[in-house]
Amino acid sequence: MIESIKNRRSIRKYKNQEVNPELLNDLLSTASRVSTIGNMQVYSVVVTRDAEMKEKLAPAHFNQPMVKGAPVVLTFCADFNRFSKWCEYRNAQPGYANFMSFMNAATDALIYTQNFCTLAEDAGLGICYLGTAIYNPQQIIEILQLPKLVFPIATITLGYPDECPSLVDRLPIEAIVHEESYCDYTREMIDKLYAYKESLPENKQFIAENNKETLAQVFTDVRYTRKDNEFMSENLFKTLKQQGFIL
Amino acid sequence: MIESIKNRRSIRKYKNQEVNPELLNDLLSTASRVSTIGNMQVYSVVVTRDAEMKEKLAPAHFNQPMVKGAPVVLTFCADFNRFSKWCEYRNAQPGYANFMSFMNAATDALIYTQNFCTLAEDAGLGICYLGTAIYNPQQIIEILQLPKLVFPIATITLGYPDECPSLVDRLPIEAIVHEESYCDYTREMIDKLYAYKESLPENKQFIAENNKETLAQVFTDVRYTRKDNEFMSENLFKTLKQQGFIL
Repeated sequence: MIESIKNRRSIRKYKNQEVNPELLNDLLSTASRVSTIGNMQVYSVVVTRDAEMKEKLAPAHFNQPMVKGAPVVLTFCADFNRFSKWCEYRNAQPGYANFMSFMNAATDALIYTQNFCTLAEDAGLGICYLGTAIYNPQQIIEILQLPKLVFPIATITLGYPDECPSLVDRLPIEAIVHEESYCDYTREMIDKLYAYKESLPENKQFIAENNKETLAQVFTDVRYTRKDNEFMSENLFKTLKQQGFIL
Repeated sequence: MIESIKNRRSIRKYKNQEVNPELLNDLLSTASRVSTIGNMQVYSVVVTRDAEMKEKLAPAHFNQPMVKGAPVVLTFCADFNRFSKWCEYRNAQPGYANFMSFMNAATDALIYTQNFCTLAEDAGLGICYLGTAIYNPQQIIEILQLPKLVFPIATITLGYPDECPSLVDRLPIEAIVHEESYCDYTREMIDKLYAYKESLPENKQFIAENNKETLAQVFTDVRYTRKDNEFMSENLFKTLKQQGFIL
């Protein structure tokens, strides 16, 4: 499995082949061995196989073709609803309608998601994370009928790979690791750490295609803009309120 | 590695044996193959080996003995500082001082953390997640000198296991999975899904020790109370503001 982690690629094109429901269930079940805060397991997953449901979900994910193209779409959710219901039925007063509990549940949900992905890839399946789950949470909540204290955190498309894209570059590990305390980045360090990424032909092409001067500008001006981020931040707060995680 | 995932336990007691720095570096490096939003890798990790630093960190983690007892403590952080610095040095205006970017970076950091844990456990190491990283973020930020746009998200203690605790129970997979849309839990479903957990002798003992009527009350009245959650929610917002992720 180390090899499957070392050589993993996100897969966006899938074979026209179902994912056996028993296999999926096994993987989701084994994944639950992951750590969980206080053994509360404050997460859920909604499995989408139905073509009509995928059609409905697609716009929430900016119509990325994987949503309709994958045999399975999984929406992993932070979920304090189940736990709170249990408390209510056991003469206990749940206190989880707050931001701290959202963060605890989001943590649980994300490490569960990643554990699932590792197992799925080891079983020969391919996955792609769609960050869009938290960009348009309202739409997803409505389509999947998520009650209060449930919030979509990560969407994964899943299926048998029908492509083998090349390995994507990563920063050298010195970019990520700090010994004992955080050593802030000087210009010289940034130059060195980003040199390889900036040297890649595909990234140079990316700059040209977007008519920009630097790769960083492709991110700030096109892909992850301040304007979009600020709009989505507002929306995220609004939806956290709607779902009962913020007063 | 499936076996190491199936049989994993959180490890809180470690052998008096160092974790080889090269091995740790390899694991942290391989873990970075995990998916990352837009290939931005908006996370960092601070490695604590120094006894004095562990001593300082311990109170932030409510003096859980693993902090001083583990050869290595890892603090995984959401980090938009490095990426923003890169933007600034490349004539691009970063727009990541907002809540959406915090959530993107937290997601990146958490799935990276989990990928690291899987690899570490497969290499024979034991880990324990400390949820406390987000309970007392200010203290951690100060001790590790985290600049703006960096936020501690998960702390892991790491070392060679000196215990083999029994496997902890998990809910049946039907508790977690919803087909096509979220099917809310009736009292009957809750009774069924929690029956095994409630039948366990260790959980019955837990109720007795805490002088409660139900297991749920141990959570709501002792372990994860509304009062603590509300206090920590306020604190979390305050610290997100301090680190520049909320206006």
